[in-house]
Amino acid sequence: MNETLTLWTGNVLSEWVDYNGHMNDAEYARVFSNAVDALMEHIELDEAGRQHHQYTLFTLENHIKYLAEAHQGAPLQASILILDRDAKRVHLWVELKDDSNQLLATSEQMIMGMSNETRRPAPFPLIVEEKLANMPHASFNQWPKGSNTLIGIRRKNQ
Amino acid sequence: MNETLTLWTGNVLSEWVDYNGHMNDAEYARVFSNAVDALMEHIELDEAGRQHHQYTLFTLENHIKYLAEAHQGAPLQASILILDRDAKRVHLWVELKDDSNQLLATSEQMIMGMSNETRRPAPFPLIVEEKLANMPHASFNQWPKGSNTLIGIRRKNQ
Repeated sequence: MNETLTLWTGNVLSEWVDYNGHMNDAEYARVFSNAVDALMEHIELDEAGRQHHQYTLFTLENHIKYLAEAHQGAPLQASILILDRDAKRVHLWVELKDDSNQLLATSEQMIMGMSNETRRPAPFPLIVEEKLANMPHASFNQWPKGSNTLIGIRRKNQ
Repeated sequence: MNETLTLWTGNVLSEWVDYNGHMNDAEYARVFSNAVDALMEHIELDEAGRQHHQYTLFTLENHIKYLAEAHQGAPLQASILILDRDAKRVHLWVELKDDSNQLLATSEQMIMGMSNETRRPAPFPLIVEEKLANMPHASFNQWPKGSNTLIGIRRKNQ
């Protein structure tokens, strides 16, 4: 079991509930995006940091797995674990849980650091690199169940 | 090149643009969710159909790849291709393009048919099955570039 860093908490708003009577799939993506915004604050890439470093993060890819329904008002918490990173990229794992610690969804994201001056990928500023280094990491053989899997219908005779 | 079925069109709304000056990652997920809602209308699972059949669709998994930025006002179109399906599941490919046919993002989704009576997976109603069968399909060896790939940082010496 990996330690994760909880960076976002909230509740399922009434406007997030769809015709199926549960939190809409796109609102899960919104919550995972909010968690990455909270991560940016944590690594000093809030608005002031983005301005200071002329630097931001772009999302390249996001794999969301929907594991349980969330209903109106339910407390939510999103916590983050770093699966991998290099000088410009972070491969993130985000867990969304309710207040009974039930896993509602996971999001696996590839994030790219970008220079606002060149609008091209660029290495993380030093302070950002340091902040990332101090976050929880999982080595490859400890990656969480369900991470880095292919999507597809598995048939019993295959 | 596979034929796809365009089911949703729109424009990038001003409220979808974030601090990076482009359409926010979660709004791409919203558009892909809208495309699946349009698919539900197409296969007679709009509100009346859901009520009639006591049946709906849940999203199990969604892999989004962000390929190009979209800016305020840009025209968008989402088109759908079926990669695989069985009696209860559809493995979808959704392409989001601008009006110059540039691919902005792709979404690969696993969708599960659900009985509203049992709240359990259940086979598609006959009319839904027929409508799905008449949509564009790609056989496995024709799956689009970028579909069904693992997420991760690829290093040059690996």
